[in-house]
Amino acid sequence: MQGLMMETPLLITSLIKHAAANHGDTEIVSRSVEGPIHRYTYADSYVRIQKLANALAGLGVGEEDRIATLAWNGYRHFELYYAVSGMGAVCHTINPRLPADQIAYIVNHAEDQYIFTDLTFVPLIEAVAAHIGRVKGVVVMTDAAHMPETKLANVLCYEDLIADAAGSFDWPDLDENAAASMCYTSGTTGNPKGALYSHRSTVLHALGTAVPDVFNYSADTVSLPVVPMFHVNAWGIPYCAPMTGAKLVFPGPKYDGASIYELMDGERVTTAAGVPTVWMVLLDYLRTSGNKLKYLKRTSIGGAAVPLSMIKEFEETHGVTVHHAWGMTEMSPVGTSGHLKAWMEELPAEQRYALKVKQGRAIYGVEMKIVGADGKELPHDGTAFGELQVRGPWIARSYYRDEAGTAAAFTEDGWLRTGDVSTIDPQGFMQIVDRTKDLIKSGGEWISSIDLENIAVGCPGVAEAGAIALPHPKWGERPLLVVVPADGDKPTRDDVLGYLKGKVVDYWLPDDVVFVEELPHTATGKIFKSKLREAFKDYKLPTA
Amino acid sequence: MQGLMMETPLLITSLIKHAAANHGDTEIVSRSVEGPIHRYTYADSYVRIQKLANALAGLGVGEEDRIATLAWNGYRHFELYYAVSGMGAVCHTINPRLPADQIAYIVNHAEDQYIFTDLTFVPLIEAVAAHIGRVKGVVVMTDAAHMPETKLANVLCYEDLIADAAGSFDWPDLDENAAASMCYTSGTTGNPKGALYSHRSTVLHALGTAVPDVFNYSADTVSLPVVPMFHVNAWGIPYCAPMTGAKLVFPGPKYDGASIYELMDGERVTTAAGVPTVWMVLLDYLRTSGNKLKYLKRTSIGGAAVPLSMIKEFEETHGVTVHHAWGMTEMSPVGTSGHLKAWMEELPAEQRYALKVKQGRAIYGVEMKIVGADGKELPHDGTAFGELQVRGPWIARSYYRDEAGTAAAFTEDGWLRTGDVSTIDPQGFMQIVDRTKDLIKSGGEWISSIDLENIAVGCPGVAEAGAIALPHPKWGERPLLVVVPADGDKPTRDDVLGYLKGKVVDYWLPDDVVFVEELPHTATGKIFKSKLREAFKDYKLPTA
Repeated sequence: MQGLMMETPLLITSLIKHAAANHGDTEIVSRSVEGPIHRYTYADSYVRIQKLANALAGLGVGEEDRIATLAWNGYRHFELYYAVSGMGAVCHTINPRLPADQIAYIVNHAEDQYIFTDLTFVPLIEAVAAHIGRVKGVVVMTDAAHMPETKLANVLCYEDLIADAAGSFDWPDLDENAAASMCYTSGTTGNPKGALYSHRSTVLHALGTAVPDVFNYSADTVSLPVVPMFHVNAWGIPYCAPMTGAKLVFPGPKYDGASIYELMDGERVTTAAGVPTVWMVLLDYLRTSGNKLKYLKRTSIGGAAVPLSMIKEFEETHGVTVHHAWGMTEMSPVGTSGHLKAWMEELPAEQRYALKVKQGRAIYGVEMKIVGADGKELPHDGTAFGELQVRGPWIARSYYRDEAGTAAAFTEDGWLRTGDVSTIDPQGFMQIVDRTKDLIKSGGEWISSIDLENIAVGCPGVAEAGAIALPHPKWGERPLLVVVPADGDKPTRDDVLGYLKGKVVDYWLPDDVVFVEELPHTATGKIFKSKLREAFKDYKLPTA
Repeated sequence: MQGLMMETPLLITSLIKHAAANHGDTEIVSRSVEGPIHRYTYADSYVRIQKLANALAGLGVGEEDRIATLAWNGYRHFELYYAVSGMGAVCHTINPRLPADQIAYIVNHAEDQYIFTDLTFVPLIEAVAAHIGRVKGVVVMTDAAHMPETKLANVLCYEDLIADAAGSFDWPDLDENAAASMCYTSGTTGNPKGALYSHRSTVLHALGTAVPDVFNYSADTVSLPVVPMFHVNAWGIPYCAPMTGAKLVFPGPKYDGASIYELMDGERVTTAAGVPTVWMVLLDYLRTSGNKLKYLKRTSIGGAAVPLSMIKEFEETHGVTVHHAWGMTEMSPVGTSGHLKAWMEELPAEQRYALKVKQGRAIYGVEMKIVGADGKELPHDGTAFGELQVRGPWIARSYYRDEAGTAAAFTEDGWLRTGDVSTIDPQGFMQIVDRTKDLIKSGGEWISSIDLENIAVGCPGVAEAGAIALPHPKWGERPLLVVVPADGDKPTRDDVLGYLKGKVVDYWLPDDVVFVEELPHTATGKIFKSKLREAFKDYKLPTA
């Protein structure tokens, strides 16, 4: 027996319609690429969205067509989100920070029909133009006065394109499972892989993140998404804000501390979302300038582990509550949020902070489990660690046209393998302890390279340490510890092993310790494990 | 092209699973019908829910079977919500305050297989037993020690029923559109009509109401639903709370001021939901006892218009923010919430309160429009009034096995006719000004009976006034005003008409004024319009 409820599909257009009808006066403020601050309302925006949809139809864009964007966070990008998805086409945001060859690969793999670009990225398109010959045209997101000189063929001006279009559009009745937008992951190996979001997954993600323990969005919120609209839809904030009537503030191309602070102060931003590196820059600026965050109440931080010092500085110097979030491109992206439960707020500061540096609790809509080397589910006791797997209505079930990638990332019974290794504590807080590819698999048991490293740096004379797996005839893999001595110190192999003995179970003890002058690092300062493995790929363990 | 996201159905079981996994220690506290306060956790509850599902299966209950409840708000009722819907059966809550003949009608119309009842309602079932012969058995929601003497056939004891059942249940893979629960409306005319909620509509309603501007539920929330679980699922709070990890406090059978206050104070309740009459009783108690609401931060009030004095007393005496909510059984039920936007909080008190007495803004998921006498949509200008129509994913599309009721309540293009007449202002705030059946339709224009009455009581010497439509050969209907003079006063027809002249447009002026000693009232103190119309059905207007 079916329920007798209206069969209303969950469509992205419903979000902007709701905002125009109920929050028509609420502002969207953008720092434009051209320079000035631009401001208009949800009601204004909805008219331009409909003009854009008519203009796209005029270009021959129809349902299922992919329309690419290379753009900062701003009002025209926001208009594209709604016009493209609303008319049944697919809004394909491209990360302009990817290498040129990957951008060309993505445009061709997605079969993008048009590329909408900010002025900033015209040279980037010029550089790859020869390799993306199937694209029908490029629309520069500016007005006639700012159109650049370019040798690109079929170049259009955004404002000219929509100027004469009608301000109302008859949105098609779409299936809520229709594709609405797409985003390619930027993996360190292999080709990028495309996640294809649906209207349903986007609306459910917006509902699931609007709640108090995640983004906490309301008509009182002034939201600054510093996370880019060119990657995973700026964590869905361009959908969550109109749903809740929150005011949107878009930073455009300027991510320096002074520019971000100017918007936060001038627009009275109450909540912001960003990655740690952006906040590092802002906190630096605040320390130097002596400015304080007067209006900001909370920020969700994710994309990488948030340093404890950053959480403390936000909370103790600026009175801003930090929520550690975690997610993935394949997850729309939000999976967890580190909102403390009421009784946790009463804990001594160090215990509170120990919880706040974890990646947070699963939000409703996301199921999490950790799985051991034997494929069995592990207890949520805060110490057992295993591969983190997730499932839920806003998580991808496969990659776009990529069978091999899909087979590697998704289990047969429908879970996404996140590639993260983590613990989950009895309160549901998840903490990432490693990447699965960095785990050392010894005799059917897992050894965490990160745990080994963190303990080893406690050894006197050790400045930094990297643990990697080397092949072993009996155990499959055994750990090698690569150590950078502290200045002027010369610890020995036995010093290090002696220090570790008793601090880890015996089978975790490295089979060898070698000393180097420095370790390779990633852009974000983490040990570059694949490079380290490459450097020692011919090294023979004494036990092998 | 379909999106490539997981096809995860929105099922009610996911709510309690989420709570058990992520908020296992969070409490559900109930005042039991037997007397003592009962407390256990979401983890405990989920085990008993699975025991109950196994026990129901043992009774032969299968998918689509209707299981009725006659029960207060408490932990066993909560268990039924999840066990019955989770196994694919339909949890049919019955309002024990309905007349016995309507209860018998509902049980038979729904074809309920079993009735689960609190001790309180055993006599009620005994009284209708002869008329509900198809029911297979009655389960009394208590333990063996408290089982009552009864002549009912096939009586079971809840605790005995589940005692030996297994604590884990293999939930079926249901279609998210499958029926999950049902509730009959308690109309003043005709037979009750059944709304049949689906898993999808229930989960979406929980997501849509958890947001800050509606119920604002989080893991910090301590929620006291005073609204009954026997009607419209207690506004969905038993679903919203586990979704967000909120602690639940159930008042059981005791709704008196002292009992409600004891729970609010003892359990540190932060948010509560109820109808005005219940809060009237509580505020009375607080005034008399001198107690203050120390922990309560906000309350959603709906089901009837909230008096301004109540809003002021909550806010000014107790520091509790009131959100006027509005909805219907057919709407799961929430349609609006009166959360003020940030700038409205800065308005002078009387302007703030003028907004707060309105029924509130449409929440995301609910579309509202007002329609005039000519069937055309009216502007949202705060003055034009028309029939309020709504649609959305948690709104019924028809009644259960009731074609005539369905045809009357739903438009052909898929909107629910609410039967309310209202205005919507440019900020989206809706205000009910009348019921459609109480409107006076004069020459193709509508006259609001409530507006006429509210203005008429400003006339010196008028204590109360009721406006009703009487048939008129030329205009279709014309207004008659029925006036109760103030003690010792004797206003005349001309006094009243003279007072109204200029305060309303001319065609609103009543065609006659008559004086009576008192007007008929409903249980909630409103003028009983259908009785008043009945009393004057043979009255001839002088103009007719």
